[in-house]
Amino acid sequence: MLSEKAKKVFEEPQLHVEDIQADKFQQQIDYIFQHSEFYREKFQKAGIERENIQSLNDLKKLPFTYKDEIRASQKKAPPLGTHAAADMEDIVRIHSSSGTTGRPTYTGITRQDYDVWTEMLARVCYTHGIRQDSKVVFAMGLSFFVGSAMKDGIERLGATFIPIGTGASDRVVRSIIDFQADVLFCTPSYATYLAEFVKKNYGMHPSELGLKLMSVGGEPGGGLPEVRRKIESEWNCKVMEAMGNADMAPVLFSECPEQKGMHFIGADNVICEIIDPETGEIVPESDHMEGELVYTAINRECVPLIRFRTRDLVQVDTTPCACGKKSFRLRCIGRTDDMLIIRGVNVFPSAIKDVVNSFRPKTTGEIRILLKEKPPLVNPPLPLKVEIANGLSEREQEALQKDVQAALRFKLFFTAEVELVSEGSLPRFEMKAKLTERLY
Amino acid sequence: MLSEKAKKVFEEPQLHVEDIQADKFQQQIDYIFQHSEFYREKFQKAGIERENIQSLNDLKKLPFTYKDEIRASQKKAPPLGTHAAADMEDIVRIHSSSGTTGRPTYTGITRQDYDVWTEMLARVCYTHGIRQDSKVVFAMGLSFFVGSAMKDGIERLGATFIPIGTGASDRVVRSIIDFQADVLFCTPSYATYLAEFVKKNYGMHPSELGLKLMSVGGEPGGGLPEVRRKIESEWNCKVMEAMGNADMAPVLFSECPEQKGMHFIGADNVICEIIDPETGEIVPESDHMEGELVYTAINRECVPLIRFRTRDLVQVDTTPCACGKKSFRLRCIGRTDDMLIIRGVNVFPSAIKDVVNSFRPKTTGEIRILLKEKPPLVNPPLPLKVEIANGLSEREQEALQKDVQAALRFKLFFTAEVELVSEGSLPRFEMKAKLTERLY
Repeated sequence: MLSEKAKKVFEEPQLHVEDIQADKFQQQIDYIFQHSEFYREKFQKAGIERENIQSLNDLKKLPFTYKDEIRASQKKAPPLGTHAAADMEDIVRIHSSSGTTGRPTYTGITRQDYDVWTEMLARVCYTHGIRQDSKVVFAMGLSFFVGSAMKDGIERLGATFIPIGTGASDRVVRSIIDFQADVLFCTPSYATYLAEFVKKNYGMHPSELGLKLMSVGGEPGGGLPEVRRKIESEWNCKVMEAMGNADMAPVLFSECPEQKGMHFIGADNVICEIIDPETGEIVPESDHMEGELVYTAINRECVPLIRFRTRDLVQVDTTPCACGKKSFRLRCIGRTDDMLIIRGVNVFPSAIKDVVNSFRPKTTGEIRILLKEKPPLVNPPLPLKVEIANGLSEREQEALQKDVQAALRFKLFFTAEVELVSEGSLPRFEMKAKLTERLY
Repeated sequence: MLSEKAKKVFEEPQLHVEDIQADKFQQQIDYIFQHSEFYREKFQKAGIERENIQSLNDLKKLPFTYKDEIRASQKKAPPLGTHAAADMEDIVRIHSSSGTTGRPTYTGITRQDYDVWTEMLARVCYTHGIRQDSKVVFAMGLSFFVGSAMKDGIERLGATFIPIGTGASDRVVRSIIDFQADVLFCTPSYATYLAEFVKKNYGMHPSELGLKLMSVGGEPGGGLPEVRRKIESEWNCKVMEAMGNADMAPVLFSECPEQKGMHFIGADNVICEIIDPETGEIVPESDHMEGELVYTAINRECVPLIRFRTRDLVQVDTTPCACGKKSFRLRCIGRTDDMLIIRGVNVFPSAIKDVVNSFRPKTTGEIRILLKEKPPLVNPPLPLKVEIANGLSEREQEALQKDVQAALRFKLFFTAEVELVSEGSLPRFEMKAKLTERLY
């Protein structure tokens, strides 16, 4: 006679992702209690012991993890922080973000993390429709940014990876032509720039290059209907988005050729929750719920994250997709914080203020970032008012303006248009520093 | 009773690399006859049939392969050329070089080629003394250049790979400090630049950063005693070189901590010959023979190369090394052609001329590259005389000067200092275009 357990296996032969999630979640909690000082302390403070976490239902009892905590943890125990749960010897790669204050935050991965990432990156490509015979030109940065890990995924899928990087548009175009490449990875703003570049320098219409697919990321622009329509009509190809998070994984969501939002491709590695960013409550499930995306890793070694607040505002779609994939889809519709995204690079107003502050006492440190567009996506050059101290000569002012611009480019990777304004001319606010001013 | 073959195995249990080479060489020749149109034609022209190649001794009967042939093959059958012997579907990555004429040459790799490269890259790191607990900051380009494949080798070895790329010195320094990194990969000229950068911007002596090892490549400077001494004394660390070839493999030679030349680490994948570049004859074996390095791949799928002329002049050392490794060592002592290396990028004078030619009829196309140092290693900005056509206004001249400089930066990745000279002022030579002029 069959045991109850065996019966269950025979009667429900299908693998349920919820079962996998439940098992891995328990293993991850074990791992965290063993290896992460940060979470041991955090759980202790919240009065949570190991035995309080028995099923996936207990997840909602656990406290959120905030990016600020990760930063503070890295400041307290540099470089990786007390939340990091792997020995340096087992870490095979370290990525860094631009950080909010010019000081980067680091994300390490072990060999297992690397495998999980690579598998998810390959799935993202497959979901887009990329196959072994696809030729993929990669025109995004291949450096410290976490997105450069896409290399591994494209190669694991077995497509042809043609790395170019940034700042070599001629080579991008030439590679597309020479290999009759069908796929281009880039930021949405680069897609627009490159269309002009092709027209101007090659006397060709971009659509003549024959691209079939552009996978855009690094900026949310690819999700804006008007941006997408423009790119698609210029290039006569499909534009698809992929989305991830520098702390969790380069990509977790990927659009299929139906282009109705990004499918979640990481259910065996990450649990998603959608919460009300104000109350922290889980948003009641519905076909088109909206809220902040929250991640919990369930098999992460170096950077375990429990209920990590992404600050990404998303709209979730759980209706069936014509492509046949059953996973839910989402679109990113904004941010819950004041982060700006300039040509694919995350920049916080506080980081800009920090850079300006480093020029005290020549400046008072007061700034105002002028936003011509609705954030987070803004285009350089970014107009920036900087208050100068009284008594600077004209020559000193000229030098200061140049130096601030150079420092912003060097530390935060964007071009600013600095206008110096006299001491005291920027209004002060009692409660909270006001760093931005809307022009739109 | 034991068969003769089995006897041999028992009596000579040690694996001989020559046996591996002999077997793989035969398999490679089979593969080439099956898959490479280029070599089938080349061998036919040379009157060589499959049965003429029976042992390693027959290698020297085979004709050389020249870079120009690879280029012509890619021009004839773009993009990869008739010498490429793998289907695009099986190619997982394509690297490109700057090329001699602004037009890049491409090198594809299959999954097997990728594995062979990665294994050799890991060996290079191991030979340097890099181990699983090493923290490696990578400050070289991660893009189209073949050297960016080093990522795979460092990660396979299991050291911690900290990718930075170029143009982010602040981040390089910060990473070294934050992770107490012990290894830095960069070009020799960048090592010198970074020392000044650290002093100027951090008020520290470079040696305070605590690096133990710099692996320098992309330029031959690391082999020059005075360059190396300077870097080593600034940084108080060992400087080691690694060397490869864009067409064959990112690295095949690697220095050990004894620093007495680079060990050959690829004997199971590549056969080296040292020839007299004038006569093509193999240089008689001796402890310190000199000549041009010639490569034959013995298990290459996408780009098989038989007796490939590298144009690298090397000095070989076959005496025992104190590190215990038995493989021969070499140093690169020059080039047999006129290639320049500017900040790690290969540039041929003919490519510079091609760029200038694209501005005809405003220029006559005549140029003179002024060499302040002995090539191939030269520092930017590169002084360049460009002959202009008669009748250009001052304004047109100003624009032309800027445009040529921009085009050189854009297409060949270096900074030139263009001086316009009047039509007919550069002496002509009947036999051969003279593109360079020595100032040293």
